[in-house]
Amino acid sequence: MPNISRYVDISEVDKEAKKDYIDRHSPFITCASSAKAGEKFAVNVRMGNEYSHPDDTDHYIKSIQLFNGTTLLAEANFVAGALGGTGAKGQAEVTFNVVPSGSKMRLTALSYCTKHGLWECDPVEVSVTE
Amino acid sequence: MPNISRYVDISEVDKEAKKDYIDRHSPFITCASSAKAGEKFAVNVRMGNEYSHPDDTDHYIKSIQLFNGTTLLAEANFVAGALGGTGAKGQAEVTFNVVPSGSKMRLTALSYCTKHGLWECDPVEVSVTE
Amino acid sequence: MPNISRYVDISEVDKEAKKDYIDRHSPFITCASSAKAGEKFAVNVRMGNEYSHPDDTDHYIKSIQLFNGTTLLAEANFVAGALGGTGAKGQAEVTFNVVPSGSKMRLTALSYCTKHGLWECDPVEVSVTE
Amino acid sequence: MPNISRYVDISEVDKEAKKDYIDRHSPFITCASSAKAGEKFAVNVRMGNEYSHPDDTDHYIKSIQLFNGTTLLAEANFVAGALGGTGAKGQAEVTFNVVPSGSKMRLTALSYCTKHGLWECDPVEVSVTE
Repeated sequence: MPNISRYVDISEVDKEAKKDYIDRHSPFITCASSAKAGEKFAVNVRMGNEYSHPDDTDHYIKSIQLFNGTTLLAEANFVAGALGGTGAKGQAEVTFNVVPSGSKMRLTALSYCTKHGLWECDPVEVSVTE
Repeated sequence: MPNISRYVDISEVDKEAKKDYIDRHSPFITCASSAKAGEKFAVNVRMGNEYSHPDDTDHYIKSIQLFNGTTLLAEANFVAGALGGTGAKGQAEVTFNVVPSGSKMRLTALSYCTKHGLWECDPVEVSVTE
Repeated sequence: MPNISRYVDISEVDKEAKKDYIDRHSPFITCASSAKAGEKFAVNVRMGNEYSHPDDTDHYIKSIQLFNGTTLLAEANFVAGALGGTGAKGQAEVTFNVVPSGSKMRLTALSYCTKHGLWECDPVEVSVTE
Repeated sequence: MPNISRYVDISEVDKEAKKDYIDRHSPFITCASSAKAGEKFAVNVRMGNEYSHPDDTDHYIKSIQLFNGTTLLAEANFVAGALGGTGAKGQAEVTFNVVPSGSKMRLTALSYCTKHGLWECDPVEVSVTE
């Protein structure tokens, strides 16, 4: 089963290696807390907050998917080497632009590491105003 | 959170509509129970066993991913209309070919419906012989 | 053959409908003209410069791929509805971040419209400094 | 510009290395020459007819797309390692299933090698009968 790992607050994690492991595999969503219906709204997703992930050919971040609730909004696919290549580390990052409708969005990101599988972040709520 | 629905045995489900709902959204893996290391091995994944899914532009099966444990092996993306289009129903289906290594595979499929989100099937174990 | 349409300067096109058709289907790359080797470099790709594209379920921009020469760097996939849905128009847009190496990049974007196929823009040259 | 290489008949190519290079990068479509409207129709695409392609982490076949004319029907994405991994060679292969409408299909496959870019095969015509 493609188990999905979830972010846990690394300030409550003791071991440095585990902090690094969790942080670099977790997608972090940055966006405004409210959006206007019908207008373009930028959503940035970056892998890792304090740590960086390898960009090796056999170990890299392959994709980031952005969901609103259970609905896929957009997806970015990366190739090994685009963040510096073997030996380098980086934070895969993409900015999507969506036009919201409804009264709120509940955004989550789901990422895939070629060695450590699927990871998701906590949902980010965005209110949508007319 | 992009919740993942899992297949449940529809013979234990009472309502016809619910049987249909579960079955048509579930990926079914068909493959041999053992594979030879280093040789190509066919894995068929089909959406629905007894039921079919709409192929409407706003409601269709968008993707099927094949995992071995937590590792993505291959992925197929479909477009609306390739199974007959609006008003038609069909079973999205793909046959992947993988070359196994190790002593066994634990295959799962993860599919995405544009209206009803992510679904996965129970893992299928395949022994790998030299 | 999946024919690829190329952008032509719409100021040299007479008919308004044709200007609109070409512009809304063409990816436009916006980025700095020089980048630092080993540092993250933002590349924005937006569909349409002066015009917008429908976001109908049977007619929308499905993907944008970013190439450096013949090498794929990253790819974004969109779903119908994320730019306002049926009846709305919008400009699909994504910002990728890549870490350049070598002495220059030659960036091109290749997009896909579900009704009007593949489109590409003219290459954008970026010098890479140490 | 993401240049697209096209298959050329390797029986007319002199050098063995060039035969190998062209053949292993070219998608080959295998399907029946006629299909029934409204019924599922299998289309197999395999990379290479007589030769095989590396499956190294920095050099592998990443995707196969199936077009009908200019319309994308389906797409398969592969990961390095699924055909035996570093040092091994294989022929990436997928069988799609589409339900045709209209009176004919004109199928082409477009593949992507992470080192040698985009490749396409000659169109295969399929008549569609009621």
